[in-house]
Formats: sequence, C-alpha cells, structure tokens
Amino acid sequence: MIQTPYLLFLGDAPDQLAAKVAQGIKDWRPENAVAQFRMDGCKADLGIADMTLAQARDAGAKTLVIGVANRGGVISAAWKAVLIEAIEMGFDLASGLHNLLNDEPDLVAAAEKHGRTLFDVRIPTVDYPIANGKKRSGKRCLAVGTDCSVGKMYTALAMDKTMRERGMKSTFRATGQTGILITGDGVPLDAVIADFMAGSVEYLTPDNDDDHWDLIEGQGSLFHVSYSGVTMALVHGGQPDALILCHEPTRPHMRGLPDYTPPSLEQVRDVALTLARVANPACQVVGVSVNTQHMTDTDARAYLAQVETDMGLPATDPFRYGADKLVDALAEV
Amino acid sequence: MIQTPYLLFLGDAPDQLAAKVAQGIKDWRPENAVAQFRMDGCKADLGIADMTLAQARDAGAKTLVIGVANRGGVISAAWKAVLIEAIEMGFDLASGLHNLLNDEPDLVAAAEKHGRTLFDVRIPTVDYPIANGKKRSGKRCLAVGTDCSVGKMYTALAMDKTMRERGMKSTFRATGQTGILITGDGVPLDAVIADFMAGSVEYLTPDNDDDHWDLIEGQGSLFHVSYSGVTMALVHGGQPDALILCHEPTRPHMRGLPDYTPPSLEQVRDVALTLARVANPACQVVGVSVNTQHMTDTDARAYLAQVETDMGLPATDPFRYGADKLVDALAEV
Repeated sequence: MIQTPYLLFLGDAPDQLAAKVAQGIKDWRPENAVAQFRMDGCKADLGIADMTLAQARDAGAKTLVIGVANRGGVISAAWKAVLIEAIEMGFDLASGLHNLLNDEPDLVAAAEKHGRTLFDVRIPTVDYPIANGKKRSGKRCLAVGTDCSVGKMYTALAMDKTMRERGMKSTFRATGQTGILITGDGVPLDAVIADFMAGSVEYLTPDNDDDHWDLIEGQGSLFHVSYSGVTMALVHGGQPDALILCHEPTRPHMRGLPDYTPPSLEQVRDVALTLARVANPACQVVGVSVNTQHMTDTDARAYLAQVETDMGLPATDPFRYGADKLVDALAEV
Repeated sequence: MIQTPYLLFLGDAPDQLAAKVAQGIKDWRPENAVAQFRMDGCKADLGIADMTLAQARDAGAKTLVIGVANRGGVISAAWKAVLIEAIEMGFDLASGLHNLLNDEPDLVAAAEKHGRTLFDVRIPTVDYPIANGKKRSGKRCLAVGTDCSVGKMYTALAMDKTMRERGMKSTFRATGQTGILITGDGVPLDAVIADFMAGSVEYLTPDNDDDHWDLIEGQGSLFHVSYSGVTMALVHGGQPDALILCHEPTRPHMRGLPDYTPPSLEQVRDVALTLARVANPACQVVGVSVNTQHMTDTDARAYLAQVETDMGLPATDPFRYGADKLVDALAEV
C-alpha cells in the first residue's frame, strides 16, 4: 500500500498528455494531490500548487509519484537527481513506468540508506492464491468492454465518486497501473502469472458489508484476442453481481488489431453474462457506458437514446453527462 | 528445446502413479524412452530396460528426465547424488517439479562446470510476444473441456498418434509440464505472465503447411473459475479451426470447486464456439471426447451413442475405443 498524500512529479513532460497519470490522480483523488513538481521545460500543468520537495514534505506529502511517461523508457539523469533528493528528504517513490525504479542501483541504494520504499506498480508484490470460487459477501460491479481503452476505468471511477457523494458504500478496485497509482492500492493484473489471475481478483475484492459495492476496473475485452484471458479472470474472479457494458461507437477496428471488427453491445452482453453467471448466477447487466468523445452532443444523445431503446438498459457517457443513471441502476440490484 | 532421447528417472517412486510423467513419455513417445533408472525401493516400473547412467549414455540418451513426483517437494540427498553423477557424465536434466533444479546450488554448480543444461519446464524461458491475432497458415485443433483433468492432453496426443499413423501431417503442441516433457518442447502456459498468454500460444502454433494440423493441448475450462483465463488465451491465441469437446460424465462437481456443477456439453459448445469464432470465423466443433474410465463398457457405449444423437457429433473415448472417429471428423475440415 502506497502512502498518501502525494507530490506529483511531472518532470520535463513534453505535453499535457504525457502527464495523464498525474492528471488521473488529480481528477479522481484530489485529496491525494498535495502539489505538483515541475522541472525546467515541463509543458504540463495540473492547475494545482507547484511546490519544492521541502514545501511538499512540510505540507504532508508522503510519496513522490512519477505522474509522467518518460522519454525513451529511460529514467534520465535530470530526473534522477530529483528522485534521489526526494528519497533523502524522506519521500517514498511510486511509479508505473516500464523502466523500474528498483532496477536503478542508485535509487535502490538511496532508498536502503534512508529507509524508504520504491513502489513499481507494474510488478506484483503479493503471492496471490489460486481462485477458490467461494461466494463472498458484499456486492461487486465489473466494467466489461467491447474493446480495450473504451473507458472502463473512467466508468468505474465515476460511479464510485457518484456513489460516495450519495453516501453509498463503495470502493474503486484498481486492476491496472494508473488505477493503482490513483488509489494507492490494487492488482497489476496484466503482470500476474496466469494461474493466479482469478485468485488475485478474489484477493482484491474480499468479503465486505452486504450493502458495499466494489467497483472493479475492467481490463481488455472478451472479444480482444490479445488480452481476453485477463478479462476472463476478472469475470470469474470478480464474481460480479452487476456488469456495466462499456463501448466506443466510432472505432473502426479493435485496438491494435486492424483485422478485427468490434463486437456489438448485444454480443458482449450475451457472452459476458453467460460466463459471469458461472461464478454468480444472479449476475445482471445493469447499464451501458458509452465513450462519446468523438461525437457531437446531438449525435451522442441520439446514440444513447438508441442504445437505451435497443438494449432496454440505461445508457450514458459518465464523463459528459454524469454517472447518475448507472448508479441509479446499481442501487436497484 | 530439450535434447532427446531420454533416460527416465523414477527415483524411489512410492507407487506406479507417482511415475505418471515417465509413463506418459513411454506411452506417447516410446522412441524417446531409452531406459528407466530406478533406485532402491522404487515401486514403479515402466516395463522398459533398466540401465545405469553409463549404459544409458552409451545407448544414446541425452537427457535425464525426472519422471516422478518427489515427496514433500524436496529433492532428496539420495536423488541428488544420482543427478550430480548424471551431469558429470554428460546428461542434461529436465524436470517439471515445483522444486526447481535451478534453485539447487549444487546442481547449478555441477551443470556450469560440465557445460550441461538444467531444464525446469514449469518456468517459461522465452519472452513471448503480445498476441497479434493475425491469421496463420495451416490448421489447428484445440481440445476444450467441461472441466480440468477430463482428458484434454490425452485426447490431443491420441489424435496426433492416429494422424501420424495415417500419414497426415500433425504436431502435438504441449501447453503443460507433462506434455512438454513428453515432446521436449512447448509453452508452460499456467506460468506465463497474463499479458503474454495468447501471444505464447501464437508462438507455439506458427504458420505451417496448409494441410498440417497442430493438436493443441487444452488447459482448464471456460467454466472453471480458477483457470478460465488460461483457457480463454488458448481459444484466442490458438485460432482453432476445430474444437474437440472433452468431458467426464460422472464428476459430481468441478475439480477443486465443490459448489460448482459441471456445465453441459451444449453449454461448452456454445460459449467456446462463440469465442473461438472471434479469432477464426470458420471454427467448427467437430467431435466429443468422453473419459469413460468410471463407466462399464455397456454404460460407456450407451453414453457415447446418446451424445452422438444429442449433439449430432461423433463421440468416442480415445483411450478405450481409439481416436479414429475424431480424426475422421478432422479430416473433413
């Protein structure tokens, strides 16, 4: 578990998009974002206070989070100087970079010397069990997509936020690097050994209060041949009571697979529900989350209305129009 | 790739069942089984020649294969003496034990000194790619089960043997430890990192002659919540043209999951085919392999006839009645 709150390290980000991890933390857990740390030439800005390491430490920040994608997969000498100084000042470091903090001898040496921890959230640190399939108390909702990168994490985070605002009991359960950095905890599912995938999802979503909802971040798609096994482990390990279908209607082909046409919402509904009911016979599909970012407001509203008619389910774009419809549906389960 | 042929090490096997890996090699690749090596107290016997290390080496054996499950997960001192002597005499070692050869410093030191290799087939040694889903030449058949341990490996091996006898082009593709030791090659799929599962299956079943069949060893079941993600990766990475449904009709519940009822053959057919057609729209279910070991001959024949009527597919127990029906069906694809 990564200690919060954070100082968000933006380094020398070449543009705003490069800082999307930091942006996610600031958007979804603003209480964790004490300040940003920007180096010379940084082109990203989260619109929060800039602080020095000392200022951030005095303001209570516990962990410096690498909130930026690095260039060329290398932790540069310029970054390194800041990171080592942060360790010396008492910060832990957390990162989702492919280039691991723990593979950098000087960072490791500094962390050992000063008793700090380097969190590489791409690497599992828990020996997960084999899934046992036992029924757990509490409720679980899983976002399943027609494709990768259609807004599953965003949907779960938006629902979690709305539920908390309503005083419902909910927890966003991160299964990817960005989600883990946002919440400080989770399972890096794509890096788990095959036999333990479903067990890691059971571990992530344990027994809970009967009226508590886990909002489980989805991964991949049952229809994406590169990653469908990961999705399958979420459907069975997550034991969901409710599924939210996630879709991006303008995509010409599956992400990274030019020869593959995205499935229809009906196809995803039928296959996902059949498989989910193996682990939880009471599972229902409760709503549709549509990523309408490439559509006009008029087109988006018309599309959502059509989906509601065709599927008989509430449909919304939680980024554009809020997650209330989906949360209303979940409250009925 | 493990060098063949083998000397099969049975150690001090407490009973015949403990030597099932060696038995599998002797049954399916007798040409790889030069001899067996048994220690004092060994209660297993493959019915092949007993040889000393020197005799086996002179008879051409290249690798000593641990063909026995060890007691308590520990490589005993008595075993160790034999294994080190084998290394000194020029054998490579291969093992599917949880207790890795490469975790034993004295074995590692001996192998380094004598330039030999220690193969732990539980551990992937290849950096598998992410699956790209591209259509490959040649044909592929995948065994999918209603449950784990219903005879998927046996079915694929039996079909491969029958096809070779008929002069058809076929290759058994191992995805588990026993299968890898039998053939000397394969992917230990349950130990692969989640993101690379489907890619490892693509790697295992590359482009081939148009009339060549890969017989892919199945793993788990789409209906077994502990391992379904692994099965899913086989269905999509394997890009099968043909599926064989594998079933054990007398099982009261899913293996290791007392609360889970096995699915019907119809359920497995429908879900597996829907998902397989994502990767290969031409995929067909061509036959049913039934493990009838717990049924009388009369009951087994009646059951198989009923399955043929109900499913409209050829059904047999390849162990009891041969794999010809399944191969006949495959030849029509």
